[in-house]
Amino acid sequence: MSAEYKPEEAENMEDTLIDRLARRIPSVGRLGTPPHGAVRLGIGDDAAILRRSSKAEWVVSCDSSLEGVHFRHDSHPPESIGYKSLARAVSDLAAMGARPRYFLLALALPAVRTGRWLDRFASGMAKAARELNILLIGGDTSKTRNVMISITVLGEVAPGRAITRSGARPGDLIYVSGQLGGAQLGLKLILRGLAHRRSLRRFLQPHLYPKLRLALGQSLATRRIATAMMDISDGLSTDLARLCNASGVGARIWSAKIPKVKIPAVLAHLDLNALKLALHGGEDYGLLFTVRPKSAKLLRRLPPKIPTTCIGKITRQKQIVLFRDDTAETALPSRGWDPFRDR
Amino acid sequence: MSAEYKPEEAENMEDTLIDRLARRIPSVGRLGTPPHGAVRLGIGDDAAILRRSSKAEWVVSCDSSLEGVHFRHDSHPPESIGYKSLARAVSDLAAMGARPRYFLLALALPAVRTGRWLDRFASGMAKAARELNILLIGGDTSKTRNVMISITVLGEVAPGRAITRSGARPGDLIYVSGQLGGAQLGLKLILRGLAHRRSLRRFLQPHLYPKLRLALGQSLATRRIATAMMDISDGLSTDLARLCNASGVGARIWSAKIPKVKIPAVLAHLDLNALKLALHGGEDYGLLFTVRPKSAKLLRRLPPKIPTTCIGKITRQKQIVLFRDDTAETALPSRGWDPFRDR
Repeated sequence: MSAEYKPEEAENMEDTLIDRLARRIPSVGRLGTPPHGAVRLGIGDDAAILRRSSKAEWVVSCDSSLEGVHFRHDSHPPESIGYKSLARAVSDLAAMGARPRYFLLALALPAVRTGRWLDRFASGMAKAARELNILLIGGDTSKTRNVMISITVLGEVAPGRAITRSGARPGDLIYVSGQLGGAQLGLKLILRGLAHRRSLRRFLQPHLYPKLRLALGQSLATRRIATAMMDISDGLSTDLARLCNASGVGARIWSAKIPKVKIPAVLAHLDLNALKLALHGGEDYGLLFTVRPKSAKLLRRLPPKIPTTCIGKITRQKQIVLFRDDTAETALPSRGWDPFRDR
Repeated sequence: MSAEYKPEEAENMEDTLIDRLARRIPSVGRLGTPPHGAVRLGIGDDAAILRRSSKAEWVVSCDSSLEGVHFRHDSHPPESIGYKSLARAVSDLAAMGARPRYFLLALALPAVRTGRWLDRFASGMAKAARELNILLIGGDTSKTRNVMISITVLGEVAPGRAITRSGARPGDLIYVSGQLGGAQLGLKLILRGLAHRRSLRRFLQPHLYPKLRLALGQSLATRRIATAMMDISDGLSTDLARLCNASGVGARIWSAKIPKVKIPAVLAHLDLNALKLALHGGEDYGLLFTVRPKSAKLLRRLPPKIPTTCIGKITRQKQIVLFRDDTAETALPSRGWDPFRDR
């Protein structure tokens, strides 16, 4: 954990697996492959971009939610599983500034969950679909022991306006939307068996029913305010490293500036660290984006009042440095969610 | 199994689940919902169709392959799992007469399979991608106990030329491509522990490495020869019922005309019934299509010589009747693959 820590080393196992697949399977996007046919952007960003017409491009992405990995049967209501699995997938569209349009659902489940459980799952997914203004256009169901949900989303964006991870330049300011760590706090309450307490219920919401920042992402894209953008799905420390890596830059961030979830007094005994939750807790689905200093004032003029906070600055040196209390300086390792790392 | 048997009753559990989801979740396609925005065809066919430009439409579909359901770790080589999971998904494009272009891969697997197993899986998928001329543009990986593959495919077709399941009319002739039952024969050899025998290896190929009829599907679409089409993925008896159901018609087929897999003499002791394999065995991924009698002669002029066989005729009565030896007449129940039916 020295100052020699480089964002390139931050690539987690998941990124490595996708790279390995892309090296072997004919693909577009990674490894300097040129754009192909209708594909303007392939593997390696939040979503792929396909040319459609002179007025719009399609943005396409897929995302899976698996029982035992992303949710548990005994602790997650089916409504939340349906809601969140769609929201997670759509978050990749928000991350590009795209407008959600259509989705395909591949669902595998045990026969015992094809009754009431499925209806509750569908009602949660329907709620997300209405809120996110997206329509189901295709599906596939199978029988398995554990529930598995795989969703492909299609969104649209004006040609050339999608914001990728690779546009950040030294000197750009780094912003996040909303608060960080709230989803992780909710998960911790569930894992510690506190989910049933009525007084704590509202702290579960960011984990069970994450709210996306679609309007913010679209405004940043259509007005060309952000130079790079992605969603914070796996934790700030991991996702900022990905953005820096894609842009070939580094970053300095200030711990005091990070908008951290407030830990309620009633949970003081749990010994939770708000900074750690904010740095490494995933699933907030807020936006992480960079802005040229001269464009920063445009953020205040965005119509829906969504809080955005400047937490640092992009640097030329390819390392990510965390300033604590404006004095101590440490390299920030990626400690966010990696399905293949045991924690 | 009376003559009262109706194809509407043939809808299997999988179709019913998709219907239940589509009733609850905002969707396009089922239940008489009108076309929406760019969507020309939604849920309920092999794939959805999206308007793209005056020259092309996108055809989109998703398909899952699951360990313990569609393949087994101890009996299926990783190359076959990679090859077949992509071929299965692309078959839905072949079924519309579309040309495969791009795919997204959602892969979940145990950490122990991220080494050599993954490389062999990727090499099988790469082989399929090259043969089917399709490129990987996005992906998502997760960790699970059992391997789960979910693939979304995008293909293109000239506007209005995609062939759906719903265009069959009374009097149309019913055709299938290739032979039926070969994949099921291969599966039976594997399940009976005969896969290691060198002399039997070639009978495994249709199950492990199914060949799609892309050129045939595209010719039938671009020349407007077929009135309705789908791929035979779950077995003729189930898939013909789906086609008839979508078209609001029935069918008469002749058992003697069905191109059945030849069961080799060395397997005579297994007591396999070639007609049953052909009627109810899934995963051949041949094409099932209907043609107006006056267009039948056009089939002989198709450039790549792919065998197609007329097996019957579409009728006004909404039932599916099987003629055995041109005399006995029985209603044909759907006995193909249904993941939710225990067999």
